[in-house]
Amino acid sequence: MVRVKLLAVCLVIWLAAGCKSSPDKQTGSASQDSTATTKTSTSGDPLPSWNDGAVKKSITDYVTDVTKEGSADFIPVRDRIATFDNDGTLWSEQPIYFELFYALDEVKAMAPKHPDWKTKQPFKAVLENNMGEMMKQGQKGLLQIFAITHSGMTTDQFDSTVSRWADTAKHPIKKKRYKDLVFQPMLELVKYLQANQFKVFIVSGGEIDFMRAWAEDVYGIPKNQIVGSSIKSKYEYNNGKPFIIKTPELDFIDDKEGKPVGIMKYIGRRPVFAAGNSDGDLQMLQWAASNKFKNFEIYVHHTDSVREWAYDRKSHIGTLDKGLDEAIAKKWAIADMKNDWKVIYPSGK
Amino acid sequence: MVRVKLLAVCLVIWLAAGCKSSPDKQTGSASQDSTATTKTSTSGDPLPSWNDGAVKKSITDYVTDVTKEGSADFIPVRDRIATFDNDGTLWSEQPIYFELFYALDEVKAMAPKHPDWKTKQPFKAVLENNMGEMMKQGQKGLLQIFAITHSGMTTDQFDSTVSRWADTAKHPIKKKRYKDLVFQPMLELVKYLQANQFKVFIVSGGEIDFMRAWAEDVYGIPKNQIVGSSIKSKYEYNNGKPFIIKTPELDFIDDKEGKPVGIMKYIGRRPVFAAGNSDGDLQMLQWAASNKFKNFEIYVHHTDSVREWAYDRKSHIGTLDKGLDEAIAKKWAIADMKNDWKVIYPSGK
Repeated sequence: MVRVKLLAVCLVIWLAAGCKSSPDKQTGSASQDSTATTKTSTSGDPLPSWNDGAVKKSITDYVTDVTKEGSADFIPVRDRIATFDNDGTLWSEQPIYFELFYALDEVKAMAPKHPDWKTKQPFKAVLENNMGEMMKQGQKGLLQIFAITHSGMTTDQFDSTVSRWADTAKHPIKKKRYKDLVFQPMLELVKYLQANQFKVFIVSGGEIDFMRAWAEDVYGIPKNQIVGSSIKSKYEYNNGKPFIIKTPELDFIDDKEGKPVGIMKYIGRRPVFAAGNSDGDLQMLQWAASNKFKNFEIYVHHTDSVREWAYDRKSHIGTLDKGLDEAIAKKWAIADMKNDWKVIYPSGK
Repeated sequence: MVRVKLLAVCLVIWLAAGCKSSPDKQTGSASQDSTATTKTSTSGDPLPSWNDGAVKKSITDYVTDVTKEGSADFIPVRDRIATFDNDGTLWSEQPIYFELFYALDEVKAMAPKHPDWKTKQPFKAVLENNMGEMMKQGQKGLLQIFAITHSGMTTDQFDSTVSRWADTAKHPIKKKRYKDLVFQPMLELVKYLQANQFKVFIVSGGEIDFMRAWAEDVYGIPKNQIVGSSIKSKYEYNNGKPFIIKTPELDFIDDKEGKPVGIMKYIGRRPVFAAGNSDGDLQMLQWAASNKFKNFEIYVHHTDSVREWAYDRKSHIGTLDKGLDEAIAKKWAIADMKNDWKVIYPSGK
């Protein structure tokens, strides 16, 4: 319930801030399907959106060293496992986790089929954008919202609902689709590692099926290499038309200590490269740092209040405090968004 | 606990039959590391160990059809997911699951550090090969054996213990290492699918870390593409030397209805190709059969009492009854070991 608790806190802050997501169901997806991964560099530089400097150099030095046959630090291909957090590491996470925007948007989209929600909390408050009332509903209310939008449907239904949302819904502040708020420098990093025969995984606190519905196309990472928190599901045969239904029962929390556990569960070996942005990723980075092979740990540090957001030690979301101390002490790489990244998003801004 | 119950039944039968496993710790592994996957065909036939006939033709016809650009049945590479059961499908499973041989062997190997086991059940009975007493211990005793040999150690320790066992322990009847009792025709099938850009997964009722310790090398399937039953594990930081410890708590049973659930959990999409040998695989085959892409289901039918074992509808292990009916009714492929396979094992026999 850690994650849900976290979400509850964020929801309250989000509501207090008066933000509003705006899914634009009219936009259509076919014309907008040029995902970020289609962008390629024409120069020989594998990381063109990174400014030249110590961090960029440490990445390319590492990759060159461990992939060169005969190098003392050479890593066999099957051990080249890279794990990336998602929220705040591969895409933005402010003012609340984008998955929570999805949940609130979905309550609104589902409302016509639930006329009772007009008078039933916590749904009434969501439908009326009534912040005060939503705050009163607290964690219990949030759990209800999470359950109704993530369970009680088949895996196929959930997948198509989320992917339709990701194709159309827009961020209330940035006025862009959430899936366009991914970090161009990190897309290049993922691609660079893949080109050097690293197998790249997402290891996210977000719900696994939510991630898989859009992340495969956006990041170029196969569904089976996307690890996340999960709820239990159930097989039903249905007279020759089998389906799997998502239940509201919690299965696994892929956050903090859960991340190394999720890595061993889904991947079966330690990563040699791990990227995160918060204290929730610290254990994953520690786990990579304990690899017998030469390894690389990197934190994305949100320092750009103009182009993205600036936050770390005292943030309501994506807190980077203990992790920052440990990164400094252990000389892990720290990507300073403002100074290390030429652009933030694929749009070039 | 389904699987454990099954194991209990098998153990009783195994004990009644008076079988004895013989791990040969003296053999050494370096000289024996030529695994089955190193074997390659020199002819143009991708399935040289399969006799020409309807089953072999149906496999190659299917693969040719769905991988040919422009074919009406063409399947995009990312949807080419193949799932294989392990016990009885990729290696033998008689007279008891090989994982149970491991558990019993391990109790014996661990005994010197547990002098109390000489007088403590169920361990006493295992150490004395006392069948009558073991039978009296029943399921509770088996659970204790399973727990002591699969938990209470780090993932690293478990991995090295199992892989040492797999490198040396021999089957009591076949007098070969368990990992040499894999099916040569199935190794060729896995390779053939991989060569045609299918992503091949193992989806086994066996414990996931047990499988991963040896199956990657033996089958040429990466650890992260091995799905199985699991117990919970826990991250411990240990002053900068983190480890993950396996607890005795059950996490997930990857058998029967659990197989499609495990597939969606670990893979995130339906297979187009599924191979099994028992009723425990039926739901996995049904799940593949519900794929919108042209799909292929195959049962390995144990019909060779001379070269392997012959069993199906009334077997104490790997029962194939409902599944056989459904395979016949739906015209799924049925590989008749005796008639369809030129050889059973990589040794050529």
